[in-house]
Amino acid sequence: MSLTRVQHFSISLDGFGTGEGQGLDSPIGHAGERLHGWMFETRWGRAMLGQSGGTGGVDDAFLRLFAPGIGAEIMGAGKYGYPGWHEDPEWKGWWGANPPFHTPVFVLTHHMRPSIQMEGGTTFHFIDASPPEALEAARKVADGKDVRIGGGATTIREFLAAGLIDHMHVVLVPILLGRGVRLWDGLEGLEKNYKVETVSSPSGVTHLTFTRTAM
Amino acid sequence: MSLTRVQHFSISLDGFGTGEGQGLDSPIGHAGERLHGWMFETRWGRAMLGQSGGTGGVDDAFLRLFAPGIGAEIMGAGKYGYPGWHEDPEWKGWWGANPPFHTPVFVLTHHMRPSIQMEGGTTFHFIDASPPEALEAARKVADGKDVRIGGGATTIREFLAAGLIDHMHVVLVPILLGRGVRLWDGLEGLEKNYKVETVSSPSGVTHLTFTRTAM
Repeated sequence: MSLTRVQHFSISLDGFGTGEGQGLDSPIGHAGERLHGWMFETRWGRAMLGQSGGTGGVDDAFLRLFAPGIGAEIMGAGKYGYPGWHEDPEWKGWWGANPPFHTPVFVLTHHMRPSIQMEGGTTFHFIDASPPEALEAARKVADGKDVRIGGGATTIREFLAAGLIDHMHVVLVPILLGRGVRLWDGLEGLEKNYKVETVSSPSGVTHLTFTRTAM
Repeated sequence: MSLTRVQHFSISLDGFGTGEGQGLDSPIGHAGERLHGWMFETRWGRAMLGQSGGTGGVDDAFLRLFAPGIGAEIMGAGKYGYPGWHEDPEWKGWWGANPPFHTPVFVLTHHMRPSIQMEGGTTFHFIDASPPEALEAARKVADGKDVRIGGGATTIREFLAAGLIDHMHVVLVPILLGRGVRLWDGLEGLEKNYKVETVSSPSGVTHLTFTRTAM
């Protein structure tokens, strides 16, 4: 069965998945690298940067779940580009010629443009769709594999509110951002439909996993 | 040296230390017992209820730090009583004749009343004071011991914002309350002045400790 999954989505202790003031030079606003720094201390993260070394503990174990079994990703327009990217016809995302997705990626946006085929198997498709419609489109091309909901916080919140997430891995980073986009707003009682497990890492982050138990 | 400490203050994953709709029959609003249920699974918590049994793990270890070395507590009016308690001349808090504090307790309120001496060493004093003023008053009677900032969320937040907390233990409960009083608002960058440690418990809660490293 094809699942809908959220993988290692980092939030601050006060619940922000993105900082304030996003722009071309600040993809996640004033949060800078503080939300995702933990990833680049691991072997997986170092390899993504073309480096060797890094830790092989629980943080690395979770990160290695990123690619296996995933057939497509859905992301929000705010993850794909800076505010105003749709006015730049050359914009192809933050990730260079060979993005780390290696699958079809559906970008939720009101600004249509033709699909963009990148190196390494990533193709960006631009759709103006509700969460269920986007999921249906992604499943069609996922070849029976799982669909990743890639973020940002607003997109994940909308899929959670629509009851579409089967499994979610959230990483709590012990910083207080104070402002930005909150993940948890409007999700009172979410835990009732999930088995929630928590494990803290020596790196300081805490991994929370939500596994659906009720529809 | 006398420290100012917060002990096992429970919050939801979305950061609420109290629910909405507090009243005489709902001391912490719609949160009910969900924020504090973990405490009563421990040996310490069972003993507080006059029961035997309970777990002796990390949750219990943290709870046993409650009394030792504490010489006074400061609490907000919303912890002392339901909204409107000041209109009830007989109100003496939620805790019965022998409250679990066994020290002087300073209640921050605009509604003055004479001090109330309870059984077991607890005396409630009512003061209309700023955080530094309240702390000064508490230190005077704490006999050189530490002062506990007992909550609720608003009171702790004000003491944090004033830079008065030396050590804080927060317990993250994996539920989403959706509404209530937030602990973390307006505290951007708090972690810069503290060493933060995190440990998750098999019970499902996560213990966060903040130990001050800078003034």
